[in-house]
Amino acid sequence: MEPDQAVTRPGTLYGVGLGPGDPDLMTVKAHRLIAAARVIAYPAPDDGPSFARSIAADLIPEDAREIPIIVPMRVERFPAQAVYDRAAEEIAAELAAGANVVTLCEGDPFFYGSFMYLFERLVDRFACEIVPGVTSLTACAARLRRPLTARTDVLTVIPGPLPDEEIRARIEAAGAVAIMKVGRHLPRLKRLLGEMGLLDRAGYVERATLASERVLPLAEAGEAGAPYFSMILLYKGEEAWMLPPRSSS
Amino acid sequence: MEPDQAVTRPGTLYGVGLGPGDPDLMTVKAHRLIAAARVIAYPAPDDGPSFARSIAADLIPEDAREIPIIVPMRVERFPAQAVYDRAAEEIAAELAAGANVVTLCEGDPFFYGSFMYLFERLVDRFACEIVPGVTSLTACAARLRRPLTARTDVLTVIPGPLPDEEIRARIEAAGAVAIMKVGRHLPRLKRLLGEMGLLDRAGYVERATLASERVLPLAEAGEAGAPYFSMILLYKGEEAWMLPPRSSS
Ligand SMILES: C[S@@+](CC[C@H](N)C(=O)[O-])C[C@H]1O[C@@H](n2cnc3c(N)ncnc32)[C@H](O)[C@@H]1O
Ligand SMILES: C[S@@+](CC[C@H](N)C(=O)[O-])C[C@H]1O[C@@H](n2cnc3c(N)ncnc32)[C@H](O)[C@@H]1O
Repeated sequence: MEPDQAVTRPGTLYGVGLGPGDPDLMTVKAHRLIAAARVIAYPAPDDGPSFARSIAADLIPEDAREIPIIVPMRVERFPAQAVYDRAAEEIAAELAAGANVVTLCEGDPFFYGSFMYLFERLVDRFACEIVPGVTSLTACAARLRRPLTARTDVLTVIPGPLPDEEIRARIEAAGAVAIMKVGRHLPRLKRLLGEMGLLDRAGYVERATLASERVLPLAEAGEAGAPYFSMILLYKGEEAWMLPPRSSS
Repeated sequence: MEPDQAVTRPGTLYGVGLGPGDPDLMTVKAHRLIAAARVIAYPAPDDGPSFARSIAADLIPEDAREIPIIVPMRVERFPAQAVYDRAAEEIAAELAAGANVVTLCEGDPFFYGSFMYLFERLVDRFACEIVPGVTSLTACAARLRRPLTARTDVLTVIPGPLPDEEIRARIEAAGAVAIMKVGRHLPRLKRLLGEMGLLDRAGYVERATLASERVLPLAEAGEAGAPYFSMILLYKGEEAWMLPPRSSS
């Protein structure tokens, strides 16, 4: 027996973007990788189903091994190191045994995604490939029916949990603005944009491209609170036709 | 004959994102719309083939009517109003006659895309649907093998043609930075980042996901000039493992 015949070729770690929610917005490549997967990993909250898994559910082979990565949702300070350490070792064992591991990522893996916590732990030991996906950023712009950026606009993407003063300064300096991770910060962000005289220039989208999607002018949003999967888009440019955001209803 | 049987139902205008170049990074929805299209519009330069058309070429039905929108490439000041006026009327005639029109857009239609010039001309007269696509932004991050943004990073997307002082100020204030439309601005941008002491934190990607792709540390880029389809990504955070950008070769 040749020596290298005894050696198992390690598998590849795939970080696969799934797009914003509608399975039709998955890429052809994501589709193919998931349908052929033997091992599938995905983030999941400790209090409900995994959003990433739900996007891909119809494609996951019945006999695939699933590795849910259960991240406590109430912990705001990521990374939950121990969770990713453990998941990385579980995945490493599969890779070392020769299996490819497809990690499901909502949106794009490298746009505010948790996939990076696996990637940083495994990239030096295994082959890794990132399959980009449609981000919630452009999905929300599509659903608001308003261009995100034009010509020489500067686009600023701001996480909602940042403090008021920082958000205010960022918006003052920006042309086009997206505020991510809105969730429970919605009332505070609405007030802030109101104080800045920008409320009528802002659109609000929750659960873009899902059946439960809502698309509203920001001024009309939030009476019922905001889910985690929500975003504010703001356009400060002069083009009148870009304003106000068109409601989907 | 019932009166409404004599009325032609107008078609829908689709702005369809194709992703950054690899046809496998098209969404399932884009795939389906293009394969079923009877009328297809796309931007094209006046001196060569259309990049958007080339991404979708294998899917375009042989008998589809094609409407190239020929935009002079040397004109830096968009929109070329007359070109879009004429194209919009050509498309309007098809829509009014009952055909759907699929407009091919590289990347995402609403992320620095020219589709908005058709959209603004037709949205009040016809049904329009935006199909978001994978942007060059996250495709370049994937190919650089480096997360674009993490946690509470603010991301700033800057068009390369802006003046030095503005780019400098934007970068100073930013966490993660993408510079789009690099092209002939590459030597100037390299010099600027060098002066700011950030050259070793920047990656350069051209023609991401195409066979002719190049992925390099910015410090090594540009000896042979840069094509229009090129981008600089810069990460100012502290995480050592994110740096330096890994070369693909
Ligand atoms: C941790 S980030 C992940 C972003 C994701 N990787 C992407 O590429 O879109 C989560 C945030 O993305 C935004 N988001 C993700 N999916 C969304 C959707 N379908 N509708 C609205 N916002 C969404 C929300 O702002 C949410 O708080
Ligand atoms: C007019 S903008 C269009 C962006 C496109 N709508 C998108 O969503 O990516 C053109 C700029 O996008 C970037 N770009 C587009 N495709 C690219 C690719 N395959 N590789 C690198 N940069 C690309 C370059 O910076 C280029 O100058």
